[in-house]
Amino acid sequence: MPKLPRPKLPLISIDNAVAGDNKIKLTSPTKLPNATGFLWNSSMVMQVNCRGYVNSQFMQPEPAKYSYAPNMEAKSFIQPEHSYFTHHPGRFFYLKDEDSGEIISLPYEPMRVELDKFSFELGHSDITWSIEHFGLHISIKVNLTKDDLVECWFFSVLNLTEKTKNISIYPYFTIGYMSWMNQSASYNETLNAIVADSVTPYQKVTDYFKNKQFKDKTFFLSDTRPTAWHANQKVFEGEGGLHQPSALQAELLENVEARYETPVAVMQFKQQLLASEGKSYQFLFGPAKDEAEIAIIKEKYLGHRQRSQTEKSYRDYIAQSKACLTINSDCDNGNGTGNNGFDDFFNHWLPRQMFYHGDVNRLSTDPQTRNYIQDNMGMAFIHAQQTRKAYILAVSQQAISGAMPEGVLLHQDAQLKYINQVPHADHGVWLPICLSVYLNESADVSLLSEMIAFADSTAEQSFASHIELALDYLINATDHRGLSFIEQGDWCDPMNMVGYQGKGVSAWLSLATAYALTTWCDLCVEYDISISKQKYDEYRFAAQAINSAVNKHLWHGQWFARGITDDGRVFGTNEDKEGKIFLNPQSWAMLSGAANQDQQAEMIAAITKQLTTPQGVMMLAPSYTAMVEDIGRITQKHPGVSENGSVYNHAAIFYIYALYQAGQNNLAFDLLSKMLPSLENAQRTGQLPIYVPNYYRGAYHQLPKQAGRSSHLFNTGTTSWLYRCLVEELCGLKGCARGLQIMPKLPTTLKHLSGQRLFRRAILNFTIEQSSEVTAVTILLNEQKITGNILTNLQAGQHYQLQVKVAMTAEGTRAASHANGGQSHD
Amino acid sequence: MPKLPRPKLPLISIDNAVAGDNKIKLTSPTKLPNATGFLWNSSMVMQVNCRGYVNSQFMQPEPAKYSYAPNMEAKSFIQPEHSYFTHHPGRFFYLKDEDSGEIISLPYEPMRVELDKFSFELGHSDITWSIEHFGLHISIKVNLTKDDLVECWFFSVLNLTEKTKNISIYPYFTIGYMSWMNQSASYNETLNAIVADSVTPYQKVTDYFKNKQFKDKTFFLSDTRPTAWHANQKVFEGEGGLHQPSALQAELLENVEARYETPVAVMQFKQQLLASEGKSYQFLFGPAKDEAEIAIIKEKYLGHRQRSQTEKSYRDYIAQSKACLTINSDCDNGNGTGNNGFDDFFNHWLPRQMFYHGDVNRLSTDPQTRNYIQDNMGMAFIHAQQTRKAYILAVSQQAISGAMPEGVLLHQDAQLKYINQVPHADHGVWLPICLSVYLNESADVSLLSEMIAFADSTAEQSFASHIELALDYLINATDHRGLSFIEQGDWCDPMNMVGYQGKGVSAWLSLATAYALTTWCDLCVEYDISISKQKYDEYRFAAQAINSAVNKHLWHGQWFARGITDDGRVFGTNEDKEGKIFLNPQSWAMLSGAANQDQQAEMIAAITKQLTTPQGVMMLAPSYTAMVEDIGRITQKHPGVSENGSVYNHAAIFYIYALYQAGQNNLAFDLLSKMLPSLENAQRTGQLPIYVPNYYRGAYHQLPKQAGRSSHLFNTGTTSWLYRCLVEELCGLKGCARGLQIMPKLPTTLKHLSGQRLFRRAILNFTIEQSSEVTAVTILLNEQKITGNILTNLQAGQHYQLQVKVAMTAEGTRAASHANGGQSHD
Repeated sequence: MPKLPRPKLPLISIDNAVAGDNKIKLTSPTKLPNATGFLWNSSMVMQVNCRGYVNSQFMQPEPAKYSYAPNMEAKSFIQPEHSYFTHHPGRFFYLKDEDSGEIISLPYEPMRVELDKFSFELGHSDITWSIEHFGLHISIKVNLTKDDLVECWFFSVLNLTEKTKNISIYPYFTIGYMSWMNQSASYNETLNAIVADSVTPYQKVTDYFKNKQFKDKTFFLSDTRPTAWHANQKVFEGEGGLHQPSALQAELLENVEARYETPVAVMQFKQQLLASEGKSYQFLFGPAKDEAEIAIIKEKYLGHRQRSQTEKSYRDYIAQSKACLTINSDCDNGNGTGNNGFDDFFNHWLPRQMFYHGDVNRLSTDPQTRNYIQDNMGMAFIHAQQTRKAYILAVSQQAISGAMPEGVLLHQDAQLKYINQVPHADHGVWLPICLSVYLNESADVSLLSEMIAFADSTAEQSFASHIELALDYLINATDHRGLSFIEQGDWCDPMNMVGYQGKGVSAWLSLATAYALTTWCDLCVEYDISISKQKYDEYRFAAQAINSAVNKHLWHGQWFARGITDDGRVFGTNEDKEGKIFLNPQSWAMLSGAANQDQQAEMIAAITKQLTTPQGVMMLAPSYTAMVEDIGRITQKHPGVSENGSVYNHAAIFYIYALYQAGQNNLAFDLLSKMLPSLENAQRTGQLPIYVPNYYRGAYHQLPKQAGRSSHLFNTGTTSWLYRCLVEELCGLKGCARGLQIMPKLPTTLKHLSGQRLFRRAILNFTIEQSSEVTAVTILLNEQKITGNILTNLQAGQHYQLQVKVAMTAEGTRAASHANGGQSHD
Repeated sequence: MPKLPRPKLPLISIDNAVAGDNKIKLTSPTKLPNATGFLWNSSMVMQVNCRGYVNSQFMQPEPAKYSYAPNMEAKSFIQPEHSYFTHHPGRFFYLKDEDSGEIISLPYEPMRVELDKFSFELGHSDITWSIEHFGLHISIKVNLTKDDLVECWFFSVLNLTEKTKNISIYPYFTIGYMSWMNQSASYNETLNAIVADSVTPYQKVTDYFKNKQFKDKTFFLSDTRPTAWHANQKVFEGEGGLHQPSALQAELLENVEARYETPVAVMQFKQQLLASEGKSYQFLFGPAKDEAEIAIIKEKYLGHRQRSQTEKSYRDYIAQSKACLTINSDCDNGNGTGNNGFDDFFNHWLPRQMFYHGDVNRLSTDPQTRNYIQDNMGMAFIHAQQTRKAYILAVSQQAISGAMPEGVLLHQDAQLKYINQVPHADHGVWLPICLSVYLNESADVSLLSEMIAFADSTAEQSFASHIELALDYLINATDHRGLSFIEQGDWCDPMNMVGYQGKGVSAWLSLATAYALTTWCDLCVEYDISISKQKYDEYRFAAQAINSAVNKHLWHGQWFARGITDDGRVFGTNEDKEGKIFLNPQSWAMLSGAANQDQQAEMIAAITKQLTTPQGVMMLAPSYTAMVEDIGRITQKHPGVSENGSVYNHAAIFYIYALYQAGQNNLAFDLLSKMLPSLENAQRTGQLPIYVPNYYRGAYHQLPKQAGRSSHLFNTGTTSWLYRCLVEELCGLKGCARGLQIMPKLPTTLKHLSGQRLFRRAILNFTIEQSSEVTAVTILLNEQKITGNILTNLQAGQHYQLQVKVAMTAEGTRAASHANGGQSHD
C-alpha cells in the first residue's frame, strides 16, 4: 500500500493538549533507543522503553519478577545504562494485515519495521504509543493501579481508510525463563487468560516456608476471547526468529502450551474492520499466587467501567506528588524551546520523581540510611508527615552508641543487602542536615521531643537526643588530627580502601560532620530547640576544630584534598595523576565554612577548569584508569561512570547548593540548568526530560565520545536537593521559625519568575522580578509592603498575593548575605 | 547463483573415515536444534551447540565465564534442557559474498540461512562443521589445549568454482555483559587481538583480594591481520539486528571500541579467492589476567606448527579416556543401523564421558560425596590409581563420628555450595559399594591399610576403619523400627521434607545400608580383609535386620514403599494418587536381598507396567503435579523432569544392575538398550549419541508429547554404573581376588560378542558366544580349556586369546546363580 504522507514532527516535544497532564513525546523509536518512562505504585515499578521493552518488578517483600529474561538472571540492584537485547522482556503487539499478509510489530520491537507515524508519549500516570501504519491508527496505553500488581494495557485500532480491512492482532508479552524447578504455561478458558506457573527455585527447607506465599504465576488476561493462542516461546518463534516468528506464518496460532519450556503469552485476535471502524482490547498482565487471585484481578480491573475507575485512581495516586511550588519562568533553559521544559520539569516531573523516592523508598526493603533520610527530605515538600514518620523510624534503628545503621529496614523480613553489608562512616551526618528542610516546611518542633527507643536498647530518648548521640558518635570517630575516619566508605560507597585498616580519614566526612554540627546548632537557635549550653558550645567548637584540621592537613594549593589513606598519603591533589580533584570536599568546605573567600574563589576556578562539562560538574578528574589500592573500588569502575568521575548529579547538586550559600547565583543556576534533562540535551543524554538521572557519563576530556550519556537510573539522592535549590534558593521562598523567608537568588538571565507556593497550608501566588528600582529585597503581600524579608502569620487555607522585587543580579555578582555559607537565621 | 546439487545425506551418522576417531555427524542445524558436543580439560569445559551457540566456563577456582550472556546471569549449577536465544553466547562467522552482496552466517546462527550443505561433526577431541554455500567449502573446527584456557579455532574456506571470488569473513565471538563495574574492549595492534577488559563485580574489600588474580580479560587472537574490526556489540548490530547486523552493510567495519558498553569480538577479513584457491585462519579465544598472558598464549598456540602440536597433545589427553574394554558386538541396538552405534558408544563415548567425570570431577570444587565416589568408581576402569587417590581424599574429609561430608572439597578455597548445604543421609553407603569395583579391577588391598586422618581429628586410622566407622554411623542412624533416617534427603536430593523433623525414614537408604554392609562383608571374605569376627557378624546381622524391617514396614502389596514421613505416613504405595511407585526401593531390595523371588517377580511386573517407557524406566510414577508437604521439593519439580518421574538414568542403571544380579539378563539388556543414546532415538531425545544424559523426560502417560527428551546434561552418576554393567555383567569379565571371573550374561538376542579386555595389565582378546553345545560357561584360554570360571595367574603385559561359550539364553530365562542378589563370591 502507498505510504501515507508523513508530516515533519519534532523529535521530542512537550504536548500540553490536556491541561495539567503535559506529556513528553518522542517521535522516533531509533533516535533515543534507550528512552524510557516509569510507572510505579507501593508494590511494583515498571520502566517502559520506547521500543516496547519493559523492566518490571514487584515486592514480595524483596524485588521479584513476573516477566523474566530468557536465562537465569542474577538478583541484583538496578544497574546503570541498562542494556537491551532481542529477547529482553517486553510487551509487543504483532499486527498482520490479513489482506496483504504483511506483518509488523508494535510499538517497534522486535521486527523493527519503519512505521508511518510513531509517537511514544509519557504522561504522569500513563505511557502511550500512538502509531499509524497500514492505514490504521493504533494506540497502545499502559497504566498501573493504585495498589495491585497488575499492568493495565489498552490497545485500540482504527481503520483510517475507506476500505474494509482484515487484520490479526497478536499481543506478545514476555514471560521468560521463570525457574529451573518448574515452569509451564497454558490458556485458561475460565479466566480467558494465559497463565504461566512456576516454582521459585530454592534448595533449603526453610526457604520453602518463606517462598510459600510467593506469587509464582504470571497471568495475561484479555477482555476479548482470542481466536487462538500460544504459550510456548521457542515454538512460537521457530526458525523465523523473534523478528519473523514462524507461528505467525499460519492462519491461526496452534494453541501450544509450555511444559518445562520457556513460557510466553501470545493471543491472536482476528478482526475485520469496516471503513473508519475501530476496535479496542483490554489486557491485564502481572503476577499472582493462584487462580483465585487472578479471578479477583479480572473482576476488579477488566471492563470499561473498571478501566475508567482504575485510570482515575492511579492518576489520583500520582497526583499526590504535587509539591509545594509551581513556577512560571521566563527561563528558556538555554535550549531555545521556550520555557516549557524548565517549568514542566520542576512543576511535574521532579516532584513526581521525588514522590517516588519518598513514598515507596525506591522499592527497596533496606534503603541505605543516607538515601532514606535524603529522599524523605524531599517528601517534606510534598507531605511532611511522611518525613516525620521516616525520621522517627530511622532513629529507632540507631544503636545506643549513636551509630546510625547502614540501611533502614522497612519490612519485618528485610535484611541488609549488597552495599549495606559494608561499613560506611557517614550515616550520622544526614539527619541534622536534612531535618532543617522538615522544620522549615512544617515548623513542627514537636518531633524533637518524641521519645524513641534504639535498635539495641528499649530505653527511650528524645529525637533531639538521638541526633546528639549521632553527632557525639561522629565527633568521637576522628583521629589524632581531628579528621573523620572513613572506614570502608563515606557518602562515596566504593571509596572503600582509603581507611579499611582503621586509619584513613575523609576530608568530605570531616567537613560534613562540621556542617552537621553547625546545622544542628543553627536549628537549635532558629527553632528554640532545647540544648545544653555545654553541648552547644562543644558542637560549635568541634565544627571549628574540624574546619581548622581540614585546612591544616588537606588544603593543597588550590583546593581541598579528598582524604588521607591508612598509610598517611594525602590524595586528591595536583600531585596525583588521576583523581587530582574531587568535587565533594570543595562543596562541603563551602557549606561547613572551612573555605574562606579566597579559597572559595580558587576552588571554583579549579572546578570550572577541571570538572565542568556541558552536562554539569564531574565528581572527580581525571577519572581513574587503573586500580589504586589505597583508594579502592572506585578506581576500578569504568572511567567516567558512576563515582569514578561521572557527572554524578548527587554530588553536583551539593556543589550547586553550596554555590547558592556562597551567593554564586549565576554559576549555581548555570550548573543547575546543565543538570536538568531537557528537550535539547535529550539526544546527547539519550533520555527524555522526565527525571534527573543519577549520572551523566563524565571523563569528558578522556572519553569525549561517551561523555554526557545518561545512566537512565531514576533512583538518585539528587531529587530532594534539586527541589530544595529551586524552592529555598532560586525562588528564595524558604521556611523559618517565624514564617516564610523571602530571599530569591535569580541569575542575571532570569529577570522574572511567578508561581504559587504552598507553605504551611497557606497559598501564595507570587511574582519575583529583578528590578533596577531596588537595591534589596522588596516585598508586597496582598499589596501591602512588608518590613524585613519574613512573612509571619500566614494563615492555613488563605490565599495571598506576593510581589517580590530584587536588585538586578550582575554577571559574577555575589549576593551580600550568605557569604559565609552555613544556614543563616536572620 | 544456482544452488549446488544436494546429495541426500542421512540426518545422523557415524563417520569412521579416520580409524580410531569415529565422528558423529549431524547434517541439519534445525532438526536437533539443541544438539551439542563437549570438550574439556582440567581447567575448562565448553559445550558446543550445532548452530554455533557455546556454553563455556573455566575454573578460578569456581566456575567463571569469559563469554557471557547479554545480561547479568545468575551463578548457578548447570541447568537441564538449557535454553538458547538470539543473544546467547556463541561463536559465529558472518560471510559476505562481496560480488553479490549476499551475507550468510556460519555455522547457522544468527542469520539462519539455509545452507547448501551442512555437517556438524563431533570427534573425540574436536568439533567441526563442514559447510558448502556460495560455491565455497567452509570448514570450522575447534579444539582445546591440554592445560590452558583457550579455545583453538580453525576456519578454512575453499573456492569450489572456476571463478575468482571476493569475500569477507567476519568471525563474531560473543563476549557479552561482563560487569557492571567496568567493561570495555578494543583492538590491540601488538597482539593482533580484540581484548576485552572487565572487573568482576564485588562490593566487599575482602573480595578484592580474592578477585585480584582473576582472569578478567577476554581475548580474541588472530593469526591474520584483519582488514577491519569491531568491538561494540550494540553498534555492530545496529537496527539490523543480529540476524542482519547494520555494521555489515558497510564495505568495512568501522573499528569501534566498547566503553562501558557490551563488548564483542568481530574482525573482518577481506579476501580474494582464485578458482580452487583456499585460505585458512586460526583464532584463539579465552580468558586472561593481563596482556602478558595473552602474549604467552599467542606464542604457544598461534601458528601452523603450534596448531599441530596442540591438536596432538589434546588428542592424547582425551585418548587417556580409553578404558578396560573394547567390544565388537552383533548388537544392532534395535535400531536397524547396524552395530556401530552400540559398540562405538561403549568403546569411545562412554569411556570419554566417564573419564571427564573422574578426571576433572565435573569441574566442581565441591562435588557431592556420592557423585565423587561413584564417578571415581568409573575411573577404576580407566586409571585405577586415580580412584585410589580420590577414595583416600574422600575419607580424609570424614568426621571422626563416621559421618561422610556432603561434598568433597578439592581446592583450598572451595566451600560447600548449593545442595551441599543441605544435610543428606546417604553419603556413608557409597564407599563400600563402589570400592568393590576398585578392588575387582586392581586387587590392591594395600589401600585398606592406608592410615588416614579425619576432617576433625588428626588421629589416623586405616582406610578399612574409615569404612567401618561410616557403616557404624549408618547403623546408628536408624529409628526404633530399624529403618534409616532420611534427614533432608538421601540419594534423592529434593526428597527433603520426608524427614526434616528428624523422624522420617527412607526405604531406599535402609536397603542401601543393608547392601553396603553385605558388600563390605563380601569384600572382606573375597579379599581377605582383616575384620573382627564380632564386627563381621554384627554387620551381617544388621543387614538382615534392616531387610526384615523394610519387609515388615514397607512392603505394600506388590512393591516396596519409598519411606515413612515424619508423621508416620507410608508413601510410595498404591494408595497414593501420585508417586505411587518409586524405582529405587525395588532395585535396592533386589541388591540387598530384601526381596524374595516372588516379591521380585511382582516388583518387576509393576515396574514394567507403571514405569517403563521407550527411553527406559522412570524413577517414579505418576509424577507429582502439586506440592506434597511431607515429601518435599521433588513434588514441586515439573512433572517428568529430573527426580519427579523422569527417566532418571542414574536410578535406571541401578535397576539394570540389580536385574543382572537377579539373572534377568534379557530385561536388563532391554532397558540398557533403551537408555543408550543412539542414531535412531536422537530425534526423540534431541541429542546426539555421544553421552548418556542425566535424564530423559518421563511422565510418559501424563505428558506424552514431551516424554523422551534429553536433559542435555552430561553430568551424571550413570556413567560408571553403565560401564560396570557392560564389563562385569553383560560381558561378565569381572575381577576377583583370584583373577578374572568369567560369567557373561548375554541376552537372547545377542548371540556373539568379541573384543579386548585389559585386566591388571594383561590383554585378553576374547570371543563370547551362546552355544547350544554347552550348558554352563566353557572357557578356552590360549586354546587351553579352563576348569571353573576364574582365570588365575594372568601376567601383566601378556596377550591372551580367550574363547567363552555360554548356554543359550532362553526368553525370560533366569540365570541359575545370582538368584539371591547381592555380591556373590564363588
